[in-house]
Amino acid sequence: MREFTEENLTEAVVERFGNTPDPRLKLLITSLVRHLHAYVREVEPTFDEWMAAIQFLTRTGQICTEKRQEFILLSDTLGISMLVDAINHRNRDGVTETTVLGPFYVENPPEVPLGSDVTGGLKGDPLYAEGTVCAPNGKPLANAIVDIWQSDADGFYDVQYADRTEAGLRARFRTDADGRFQFWSVMPTSYPIPYDGPVGDMLKATNRHPYRPAHLHFLIAADGYETLITHLFVDGDRYLDSDAVFGVKKSLIRTYTRENPGVAPDGREMTRLWYRLSNDFRLKAAQPDRAAARQA
Amino acid sequence: MREFTEENLTEAVVERFGNTPDPRLKLLITSLVRHLHAYVREVEPTFDEWMAAIQFLTRTGQICTEKRQEFILLSDTLGISMLVDAINHRNRDGVTETTVLGPFYVENPPEVPLGSDVTGGLKGDPLYAEGTVCAPNGKPLANAIVDIWQSDADGFYDVQYADRTEAGLRARFRTDADGRFQFWSVMPTSYPIPYDGPVGDMLKATNRHPYRPAHLHFLIAADGYETLITHLFVDGDRYLDSDAVFGVKKSLIRTYTRENPGVAPDGREMTRLWYRLSNDFRLKAAQPDRAAARQA
Repeated sequence: MREFTEENLTEAVVERFGNTPDPRLKLLITSLVRHLHAYVREVEPTFDEWMAAIQFLTRTGQICTEKRQEFILLSDTLGISMLVDAINHRNRDGVTETTVLGPFYVENPPEVPLGSDVTGGLKGDPLYAEGTVCAPNGKPLANAIVDIWQSDADGFYDVQYADRTEAGLRARFRTDADGRFQFWSVMPTSYPIPYDGPVGDMLKATNRHPYRPAHLHFLIAADGYETLITHLFVDGDRYLDSDAVFGVKKSLIRTYTRENPGVAPDGREMTRLWYRLSNDFRLKAAQPDRAAARQA
Repeated sequence: MREFTEENLTEAVVERFGNTPDPRLKLLITSLVRHLHAYVREVEPTFDEWMAAIQFLTRTGQICTEKRQEFILLSDTLGISMLVDAINHRNRDGVTETTVLGPFYVENPPEVPLGSDVTGGLKGDPLYAEGTVCAPNGKPLANAIVDIWQSDADGFYDVQYADRTEAGLRARFRTDADGRFQFWSVMPTSYPIPYDGPVGDMLKATNRHPYRPAHLHFLIAADGYETLITHLFVDGDRYLDSDAVFGVKKSLIRTYTRENPGVAPDGREMTRLWYRLSNDFRLKAAQPDRAAARQA
C-alpha cells in the first residue's frame, strides 16, 4: 500500500502485524493499535499535544532508576495496575483479597528470624504484627514465605533515602509449623507517592492529591498456592476514600489496636504506647496459569 | 470510595479527574483512561505481560537522548504519528500533502545561500534539487523558510554519526523573489529506522522490517500559511509499499531523474552521472488554530 489515509490507516497498521509468530503477542499488539487509534480519532490531538505526550513519556522513562519506577506509578495513578490486579484475581471468596504491588517492592528482601525487629533505625510508633498463613480451608501453611515492606513515620520507604543501602521496614520471614509469623515494626503512615516527577506533574495539573492511606505490604508465597500480593490498610486513615492509586478494598482495612504500656505478646516490656496488628491470610490454591491454559 | 472492583474501577478513575481545571486536559486524560481500560479489559493481560509493558516503556524512555527519540519511533511504527498528521491536515485539495516529521529533524538548521552544496562530506550520488514555494493559487512566496534533511548513501542522517557535530545533508534556505530554491545534495536511499532498541525489538518480534523508502524531508514555513511538513519519495523504491512508519502518499512520490554527465542547471560541470529533482510546493493558507477555535 502506498497511500495511507485517515480512513485506511488503522487497518493498514493492524495488517502489518499479520505475520507476528506468537498469537498472543499478535493479539496484544493489534488490539493496542486499535484502542490507541480509537483514542486519537476521538480526541483529535493537535501536533503540540502529541509532542507533549511524547515528552511526558520520555521524561517518565528517564526518571526511572533501580529504585524508582515512574511507569508503575503512572499505571497505578491511572487505575491500570488495579484493573490488571482485579482481572487476574477474580473469585476470591474465602481467600484474602489482593491489591497492587506498588513501586517499592524489592525482590529477595533479607530473610530474618520470626519475631525480629525490622525497623532498621527508621522512625515510628512501635507496632507488633502477627498472623497466620492458611489454605482456604483454614489449614496452616508451614514454611511459607512472608515478605513485608512499609513506609516509616515520615512516609518514606528505605529505598527513598538516598544515603541508605541497608533494608529497613522490609524483610522476609518463614512461617513456623503452625503457619504463624510475627515481627516488630512501626506504625505505617499515609504518604504521598513520589510527586517530583512527571506523574506528580500530572496529579498537580488535574488537581489530584498524591496520598495513599497508611498500609503494610505483604507478599506471601507457598508451594501449591497463588502468591498473594496485598496490603493491610489502617482503619481511620483520612485517605481511605481517595487512595491515589485506587488500591483500597474494604476487606483489607484493619484496626491496628492501640495498646498501653505493659508486656507485649512476645514478652517484651513496653514502657510506652504501642500498636498491634493481627491478621490471618488465606491463600488461593494454584490454578493452571492463564497463559498456559491459552496455549492448551 | 473504599472498594475498587473490576466493575467500578474505570468510572472511579474518570471521576477522580473531575476537578481538572483545563477542560481540554480533562477530556484528553479521561478519554485516555477509558480507552486504556477498555484495552486491558479486552486483552486481560497477565501480571507478567503488564510488567513486560512497564519494562518496554521504561527502556524506550531510557534510550532517548538529545539525538534519539525512541517514543517518536514507537509512535511512527504504530501508525499513531501518521494518524495525528492526517487528522490535523484534512482538506489538502490544491495544496501539497503532508507526512510525518520523523525523529531526525533538528530545529534551526544552519541557513545557507541558495545553490549551496549541503552534503558536508557525506556520501552519495550527486543530486540537484530545486523547486518553488507557492500559495494555493500558484503565486510564488518569497522569503519562505525551506528546511531540508535527509539520509546519505549509507542510510544515515548526520546526527546518527556519533563522532560528528556539524550539520550534513541538513540546511535551511530562503526562497528568492520568485519563490524559488535550489541546492546540491546526494540521492537519498532507503534505510532502516534505528532498530537496536526497544522499537527494533518490537519489529523483530512481530516479523516487521524496519525500512523506510528513500525520501527527502521538507519543512516549509511562510507568513500567513500553515507550515508544511512533508517528504518527496523516490519512485521505484522497493519499500514504497511497506514503509515502516506508514508515511507514503502517492502524491508525494517523485521521479528523481537520472542525468548524464554534462552541464547542470546552475552551470556546474558534471563529469559523472547525477540526479535531478524538481518540485513545486503549494502551501495552505493559515487557519485559526483548532485549540484557539475550541476556546472561542
